[in-house]
Amino acid sequence: MTRDKKEVGMEQSKIILSEKEIPQAWYNIQPDLPEPLAPALHPKTFKPLGPQDLAPLFPMELIKQEVSQERWIDIPDEVLDVYKLWRPTPLHRAYRLEKALGTPARIYYKNESVSPPGSHKPNTAVAQTYYNKKEGVKRIATETGAGQWGSALSFACNLFGLKCTVYMVKVSYQQKPYRRVLMETWGSEVHPSPTNSTNAGRSILEKDPECTGSLGIAISEAVEDAVTHDDTKYSLGSVLNHVLLHQTVVGLELKKQLKLAEEKPDILIGCVGGGSNFAGFCFPFVKDKLQGKKIQIIACEPEACPTLTRGPYRYDFGDTACTAPLVKMFTLGHSFVPPPIHSGGLRYHGDAPLMCLLVNKGIIEARAYHQNPVFEAAVLFARTEGILPAPETAHCIKAAVDEAKKCKETGEEKCIVIAFSGHGHFDLAAYDAYLGKKLEDYAYPEEKIKEALAAIPSIG
Amino acid sequence: MTRDKKEVGMEQSKIILSEKEIPQAWYNIQPDLPEPLAPALHPKTFKPLGPQDLAPLFPMELIKQEVSQERWIDIPDEVLDVYKLWRPTPLHRAYRLEKALGTPARIYYKNESVSPPGSHKPNTAVAQTYYNKKEGVKRIATETGAGQWGSALSFACNLFGLKCTVYMVKVSYQQKPYRRVLMETWGSEVHPSPTNSTNAGRSILEKDPECTGSLGIAISEAVEDAVTHDDTKYSLGSVLNHVLLHQTVVGLELKKQLKLAEEKPDILIGCVGGGSNFAGFCFPFVKDKLQGKKIQIIACEPEACPTLTRGPYRYDFGDTACTAPLVKMFTLGHSFVPPPIHSGGLRYHGDAPLMCLLVNKGIIEARAYHQNPVFEAAVLFARTEGILPAPETAHCIKAAVDEAKKCKETGEEKCIVIAFSGHGHFDLAAYDAYLGKKLEDYAYPEEKIKEALAAIPSIG
Repeated sequence: MTRDKKEVGMEQSKIILSEKEIPQAWYNIQPDLPEPLAPALHPKTFKPLGPQDLAPLFPMELIKQEVSQERWIDIPDEVLDVYKLWRPTPLHRAYRLEKALGTPARIYYKNESVSPPGSHKPNTAVAQTYYNKKEGVKRIATETGAGQWGSALSFACNLFGLKCTVYMVKVSYQQKPYRRVLMETWGSEVHPSPTNSTNAGRSILEKDPECTGSLGIAISEAVEDAVTHDDTKYSLGSVLNHVLLHQTVVGLELKKQLKLAEEKPDILIGCVGGGSNFAGFCFPFVKDKLQGKKIQIIACEPEACPTLTRGPYRYDFGDTACTAPLVKMFTLGHSFVPPPIHSGGLRYHGDAPLMCLLVNKGIIEARAYHQNPVFEAAVLFARTEGILPAPETAHCIKAAVDEAKKCKETGEEKCIVIAFSGHGHFDLAAYDAYLGKKLEDYAYPEEKIKEALAAIPSIG
Repeated sequence: MTRDKKEVGMEQSKIILSEKEIPQAWYNIQPDLPEPLAPALHPKTFKPLGPQDLAPLFPMELIKQEVSQERWIDIPDEVLDVYKLWRPTPLHRAYRLEKALGTPARIYYKNESVSPPGSHKPNTAVAQTYYNKKEGVKRIATETGAGQWGSALSFACNLFGLKCTVYMVKVSYQQKPYRRVLMETWGSEVHPSPTNSTNAGRSILEKDPECTGSLGIAISEAVEDAVTHDDTKYSLGSVLNHVLLHQTVVGLELKKQLKLAEEKPDILIGCVGGGSNFAGFCFPFVKDKLQGKKIQIIACEPEACPTLTRGPYRYDFGDTACTAPLVKMFTLGHSFVPPPIHSGGLRYHGDAPLMCLLVNKGIIEARAYHQNPVFEAAVLFARTEGILPAPETAHCIKAAVDEAKKCKETGEEKCIVIAFSGHGHFDLAAYDAYLGKKLEDYAYPEEKIKEALAAIPSIG
């Protein structure tokens, strides 16, 4: 006989929203900031940037969003229709991880790995591609680190019928061949950066033919490609205000899900490369914190590229070739090339100005971790919750495990929420290295950073 | 201002069930068969198999399920709790694929790729591991083709705290290193089959040191490992009645989802290796068809291993070494080693007896496809729906595309449902080969099959 009415043993394991509950507008934090954002500066004149300066790079709608003071910006129906391929994303209760840690804390993770490219990145890739198409752009050039951003933009360009050229950081191109094939399957052209097809790439290779690349270098190449071709614009996967804006769909969904679970988060934890994953996850809650709600917000980064924990808060170039605007941020110096850690998405010398302002104000705190403890946490997560985290994502799992252990000591029943930004299906070479005890930890590269900091122009 | 109430342009894209709607019992088709299943025979005596013959291989609860005539078998709460890590799985409407084909047909796909191992396989892996643990088993030995079954059993054993030893078909072990690392991340031991650590493996390697392996050979090795170790049992990922039983959770969910979508399926399409994915997907509908409901059920297989389309329906050994029972099935001969197609999960010489009986009765029809057209359909799917199919899954996508094109000609608005059994994240080497026009098609291996058929003992 069937028991179709019977209740199941363990409580609800996932909090799922219906497609109708996908947020209909993005949350723009700019009007709610404790102080206005310092303006971006022109790379040559060092004068505040005007819309016309960005016009060669971005469609006008995104330029408007970059400086908008509107608190809510409607999500176009065409974007929502693509979001519905995978959104709303589930919020999981990590019962088995809690049990393994013996913690009284309740651990949740917001799972952005269910998108076809496997990360949070398509939330903005789809939006950016839509606005480019709307303004007649035929091709988009971009950079990618681990390949998650390149995959996301390839996915989006393919759905909207735009061409896509991806400059992939060479170390990732070599470590993650499957990411390249994924982008090519979606119809993109992928080049290992630095290349010989741009001035930026050539000048780097002249100095260092063995250069394994960096996000900064790849950005320079993609920007050059865009400004030197009429039908082509540039797209950035993080850092910029409009990119962070598009990611807030994550945090807005999370708010609804926590309400359904009758939870108030005590700790929000995410990893930070350029900052878009983390910002999208936490900004809707930052708003509450600014209004007096008690909530701890922790940003996690690699010790090999410790921007928020070790960098000064000052103006620096967004890219290595000094062709992109200068923004006020925590930076290790635009010329800094981080060690080839497997978290390619976290190998950026700076961070999103919006994120940095909030870290500087003490609203968001930052922590840095070595590669091996991060993978230890990743394997623990894979062996308890089943899902394999991306190395980037594993940074905040490490922090969540530490916080949950603290709760075990103090007996505090905290609600901890992890930004599960992506899966590690294309990072198994890194897991292989870790399991084989062949993974390097890479200490804080103090000397290289000193050099790079010295090369930052002194402004304001 | 926010528009949280506003309706979205495109209709609903996914049909989602709540965790409470996970079926509470599996559907056992045996009492509803048009004629009783021919008994499995002992590999030495050729006499009908008794429970005591299977006791060295399986826990008693699974042996009971193998011959049960109960129509509904309750799913244990411990199994349901693990199912809830990813179940219920979504049913997607393939709007973009329909549009690309210009078909009036409505195409849906039941997405089993959302499980942590990335396929339907954990539906039975979790159940089998649970029953083994309940009866005190400490280790499970198994075989795997593409690695999907090995990943699923590794995932399940890890969650229930059992050891797991996987014999992986050598060609897949070489083509899919990431699958091996995934299994190792979940704590399993993985060996390329044929190995030198079993008599079955050694005897094969003596004849052919270059042997790329087959599911039949790997089964022989895993069975030998189990029967020669007291604390160890064997687990099979397909073919057996209890495996197909556990997979019916898929079709039972699908029924609820189609009802919510107010759809009656005209065509159900799935791929067949051993038959468990397809059986789990379609058996709840076969019941309706046996009761007179008009519905087309299409099983898809590779032309390189065309069991259902070219094999005779007769008794044959389940494995290559003739140590496993004989069952009545469509078979290419137990000694047949298929060409190294990328759909490793479809490289089995036989098929599930339950499936074969229904194909023999004309209730299920079968079709075979070459490798390149299959990948052409896979890339079309990836470029329209975004999700990357496993090569196995792509076989039924090819069939669905063909059927949707027919509807375009006839104008029929058929409802077509695809069994999307798994994702292709670990098969990108195969996509790379296809995109680079380096993929072999492998014609029907007529001579090798003739030889293998001649080696089948003549019974009944």
